[in-house]
Parts: sequence; structure tokens; C-alpha cells
Amino acid sequence: MNVTVKGRTRHYRTVAFDTRANAVLLIEQRLLPHQFKIVATPDFRATALAIRDMVVRGAGAIGATAAYGLAQGARAFRGNNPHKFSAHLEVVQQTLKAARPTAVDPVNAMNAVRAAMQAGQTVGEQQALAVAAAEEFANEDVRHCEAIGRHGAKLIRPNSRILTHCNAGWLAFVDIGTATAPLYAAQKAGRNFHVFCDETRPRCQGATLTAWELAQQKISHQIIADNAAGHLMQRGQIDLVIVGSDRVLGRTGEVANKIGTYTKAVLARRHGIPFYVAIPLSTIDWNLPSGRDIPIEERSEDEVLGAWGARGKSPGVYVRIANPGSGALNPGFDVTPAELITGIVTPEGIFRPDELWTRRKRLGWSRPAPKNETCAGKN
Amino acid sequence: MNVTVKGRTRHYRTVAFDTRANAVLLIEQRLLPHQFKIVATPDFRATALAIRDMVVRGAGAIGATAAYGLAQGARAFRGNNPHKFSAHLEVVQQTLKAARPTAVDPVNAMNAVRAAMQAGQTVGEQQALAVAAAEEFANEDVRHCEAIGRHGAKLIRPNSRILTHCNAGWLAFVDIGTATAPLYAAQKAGRNFHVFCDETRPRCQGATLTAWELAQQKISHQIIADNAAGHLMQRGQIDLVIVGSDRVLGRTGEVANKIGTYTKAVLARRHGIPFYVAIPLSTIDWNLPSGRDIPIEERSEDEVLGAWGARGKSPGVYVRIANPGSGALNPGFDVTPAELITGIVTPEGIFRPDELWTRRKRLGWSRPAPKNETCAGKN
Repeated sequence: MNVTVKGRTRHYRTVAFDTRANAVLLIEQRLLPHQFKIVATPDFRATALAIRDMVVRGAGAIGATAAYGLAQGARAFRGNNPHKFSAHLEVVQQTLKAARPTAVDPVNAMNAVRAAMQAGQTVGEQQALAVAAAEEFANEDVRHCEAIGRHGAKLIRPNSRILTHCNAGWLAFVDIGTATAPLYAAQKAGRNFHVFCDETRPRCQGATLTAWELAQQKISHQIIADNAAGHLMQRGQIDLVIVGSDRVLGRTGEVANKIGTYTKAVLARRHGIPFYVAIPLSTIDWNLPSGRDIPIEERSEDEVLGAWGARGKSPGVYVRIANPGSGALNPGFDVTPAELITGIVTPEGIFRPDELWTRRKRLGWSRPAPKNETCAGKN
Repeated sequence: MNVTVKGRTRHYRTVAFDTRANAVLLIEQRLLPHQFKIVATPDFRATALAIRDMVVRGAGAIGATAAYGLAQGARAFRGNNPHKFSAHLEVVQQTLKAARPTAVDPVNAMNAVRAAMQAGQTVGEQQALAVAAAEEFANEDVRHCEAIGRHGAKLIRPNSRILTHCNAGWLAFVDIGTATAPLYAAQKAGRNFHVFCDETRPRCQGATLTAWELAQQKISHQIIADNAAGHLMQRGQIDLVIVGSDRVLGRTGEVANKIGTYTKAVLARRHGIPFYVAIPLSTIDWNLPSGRDIPIEERSEDEVLGAWGARGKSPGVYVRIANPGSGALNPGFDVTPAELITGIVTPEGIFRPDELWTRRKRLGWSRPAPKNETCAGKN
């Protein structure tokens, strides 16, 4: 999407590849929203560190980063020996995988690149195919988000007031995003609307990342405390809720997403407000039988006990908010039952949660991704 | 309640009076939870500033502060001329009232002191009566909170897990508090239980003040993000919700309280968890016909766009969390309908919301306090 730096507007992807320099280009997300900076990782180990250290986060974005990282590692190989090349690739792939061990997207992305490389006979051919496959993986991520936008834009009427939670925006993918895709598509169609961004404590991805995205795209928006959405719904000031997800259960239609999503769904139901979840097909878990089986990651107390922000020109300053003698409980995710969800917006169209299973063949069930660890994901 | 400073535990009230120094003693709440300090205001103007600048906050606490401030001002008068004394008192009263113009408690408290002073013939007698009346006002606040604790303690069973929101603790009153009174009474009765404190964004009174109180009283507790309560309820980890209130409508049973209270009530109802509101009788507004008539104060955007905390040893450091180009909407309060409230815990016992009106004579309806401005109050 577009970013304006010093008055100059340019299109950026969250993740891109510089073929000449053999470098992965990433938006340094830890500096956002206070600074915009592109970093170029010089080799696959640096790319793995960027994934591990959250320079880049979000399911689609880390998938594409790993795909490019694998191509980058493949191209760094010197020589023609296919056995040595294969052993080298194994090291590259394991290094990138270990950077975010619970995430499934890097694994799937790298498997796709490795599969495409099979068509090459020589090391040189395989290196070229790796770059093309990584590029195709990233482009497919973008096409999926575009399709989500096309379907979801219908939900946004003129002057709609939309609530969103956390960040499932273009920063979490290669471009466009999922929960934000309908917004960007509706904007392109010339519709006016207003977005309320839940700040999304404790890590405040709504106040930082989503608000930054919407501001760059010049979409009317305001940040609210997570406590305020109920009041706004009660006073008739919210028409629609759209969120992303870390994992949607294909068998039950349950949705795991950032802590607080469930609360917004309960409130939306009370007020008769439609509640939509926007996802790529890779987010659907076809195996798990129940949302109760999703392990909920307990994250660091420090996230709840304080906050990170900018002080003057210095970003990343942590202040301790809470009483020094007190501890915190910090579940990172929650599970929203299917009955509270109006529809799931996918690249294939909008479906009721119970339709995922009945339409599973259309929705990619024949090639399910194994997901069996935590629901950690796009953070 | 008790406060431990440098290993020494002492009992403090939030507001007290030093007769010899003619000074009001206040816990400097702006430094909490990072520093504990008592300030002595040397004259009534300093007392008014302490109210205005939030050294002291909370309905009961600012009422008692104004009562003591009036006595302090009365005692500072030199001479015997009753007319001059009366004119002086008028200045004192107006100065203290203007410190928090939308709050009703200081007005009621000072009216009570002025009424008691009528019994004195001379300036000296009236000065003495003023101190006695202010002391009685403060003591009555404490007795009411004790009675709330007596009634409310029955709700807390062994091993109960209780959710509370914002701070309606002893720091908001002269001592003990309202929403916290049942906790302290149950602790005295030897019961074990655990409290989840909503951090209560944007001002985080739960993470700072309530957590500090509970830690001082050695009550088992954890701070949670406001987003987490729904998840904990869903997983069966909360048995009871108790909150305070800024204004309860005697005619409808609706409850105005800190933003986010309504959300917790909606969640509690979904999960069949009892939801109680603890208040002194002075919180009941017998006049207003509907919760929709309560104006909701919109507070500063800065509260949502950042946070105050301690950095190292420095308290009160503000960091900007949100995207610098984005604004916020910050409603300070919300209104919970009677149908979501299990009971109202008062010094007279526990009542269903619809019983307030049918039992209005017992609950002080014959002497209603005029409340007609914002629902700002104990902050």
C-alpha cells in the first residue's frame, strides 16, 4: 500500500526481494508507527533473525519472508555440486523455520518453493526457480487479499462505521491485508466510511499498526480504548465489525484471534451488529475438532504491566504502569464461537461459519495445512 | 486501610485532619502506585488546589476533603465579627466548590458542615463545630463503607474469583471503599479468594490504584488487560463481578460507571455470572428519569493515545503509544441497564435494581441530592 515519507507517496510491500543485491527488503515494523524504515537483510541468517526478532510479523508476511529467505540462501550457494547444494538448502530451511517455531506459514511457504525447484536440473536453474517461486508465493498472497477485499467491500455501505480489532492489515501480509482489505476496496470504490480502531491492549497493535496503515491510506479513523466499543454500540455508533484471525476451525467455524475479539463478538450480538472475520484459506485448520483444544498462549506479564511508546523522538520506551508489587495474567488469544459470527470473508467469497465444512472442497480441504501447536501467529 | 512503608505497616485514611496544624492530610494519589506520600495542605486554598489537581479523587474522598477544607478555612478566621465570618465562609465554600465544579459530593459535604455550625453562637463555637461536623462527615463515610462490606461479604465464597473494574476502593473514599469493601470484610472473616483487576484503560486505575490497595492489604490478585475478562469468563475462571458507580438512577436502576463497565456486565450475563454494584446512598440519583439523559463526558484524546507510568525511579512519565497522525475518541463513562445487574450493595443491604424505587424511603429518597451535571465523579 502507499506510504508517505517526507511528503512523497510511494507504494511499498511489507516484504519484497532485491534480486541484484540478493537481499530481502522488509518494513522494520518495530519502529512503527513512530518511524518508517526499510531494512535489507544481506543473507538468509539475517532474514531468519528479522523473523525471530519481529522486524516482520503476521502470517502472510512471515510466510513470504521465509520464501524469499530460502531463495536468498539458495542463490548464495557457490558451485555446481547438487548434493552439497541440497545439504546447504537444508541448513537454510531449518534456520528460517527455527526463527518462529510455532508458525505454520513459513513452513508451507518454503515447502512450496522447494517443490517448485524440483523442475530445475542444475543448481543454477534451481536457484532461478527458487526466486520465481518465492515471488509467486508473495504475489498469490496479494491476490488472495485482493479477492477478500472484492468480496468484503460489499459489506461496507456509504457512511458505515466499522470497528476493527488488532492488526490484520497489510503489514501482516505482503500487501493489502485481510480485515483491512474490504476497507481499501471500498475506498477505491469511492465510498466514505469511518473506522474505530480498538487500541488492542496489551500490545496495542490497533493503536500503532492499524491506525498507521489507515492514516497512510487517508481513511477516516479514530482509536478507542478497548473498553469503549460496548458504549459506542449501545449508542448506535457502530454498524459493522471486521477482524482477522490466527486460526479458523474448518469443522466448527470457531475463530481464534487476538485477546478481546470474543468480547467484541458478544457485544455485537447483543446489539444486532454484523460480525465478520476476514481470512486467507491458509488460516483454516481442517483438523482440530473443537476450539477448546486450541492452546491459548500466555504471554509475558510485562505487556500488561506497562506499555511501549515514544517519548519525544525516542520510540520503544517502556513505562511501568501497574503497581510495582502486582503481577498480571496475560492470555494472548481467545476463541469466538461460530454462533456469534455473521460470516467469514475468504478469497472464495463470504460464508457462514457452518458452511466452511460443507464447502470444504472449494475451500482447500483437500490440501490442509498441519497446524497443531499454539495459536500464536500474526501477533 | 493499612500501608506498609519501608517494612512498617500503619493504618491511614485517604483524607484526615491535623487539628494542631489546621491542615488537611491527603494521600498524594498522583504518585501512586510508584510512591506513597502524605501531603498536608496549609490552608483552604491549597486544599482546593489539591482537589482540582487530583491529589485526591473519588466521590467520598473529595466530599470529606471539602468538609475538612471548610473547617480549615473557618478556623483560619481571626476575629469575632459574625458578618465578616459569614462572608469569609462564603469565599471558602465557593473556592472549594469551584475546584471540581461538576462533583456533587463536596457541595453536599459542605452544606452538612454549614448546617451543623448553625448551633454555635460565637465565631469560636462555630469554628469548633465545623471541625466536629467535618470529622463526623468523614466517619459516616467510613461507617457506610463498613456496612457495604458487611452486606457484600456474603457474596464472596471460599476460593471465589472476583473481577473488578476501575477503582472504587478506599482511595476513592475516606477508608475501605465500596466495591472493595466486601473484599476487605471477607478477608477479615478469614476467607481465601482471588481478584482479577481490569487494568481499566485509558487511565489504568485498576492496574495502579486497585492493585496497589490489594497488594497493601495482601489480597491475592492479578491485573488483566480489559480484553481478557471475556476469555476468563468463557473458561470458567470468574465467579463474581463487583464494581462501584458514579451514579445509580433510583428510578430505573441504571448504573453509570467508568467506561468498560457495561461490557463486563454484558459478558457476565452471557456466562451467568452475578454482577454487583456497591455504592453509598449518596450515589443514588432520585431525579433523572433515564440513563440516556446522563451526559457522557468526553475526555482528552491523550489518555487513549498514550499512557503514564514509571521509568526507572521516575513516576509520571508519558509515552505516546499510538500512531502520531491518528486521533482518538474517549468517552469516560458508560451506562449499564438494570436488567444486567444482579444486585446493588448499599449500606442498607443488597437490593435488586428495581427495588431501589420501591424501597426509596429507606434508601434516602426523602433527602435526594441534586445531581444534574456530568457523571464525572470519582475518576
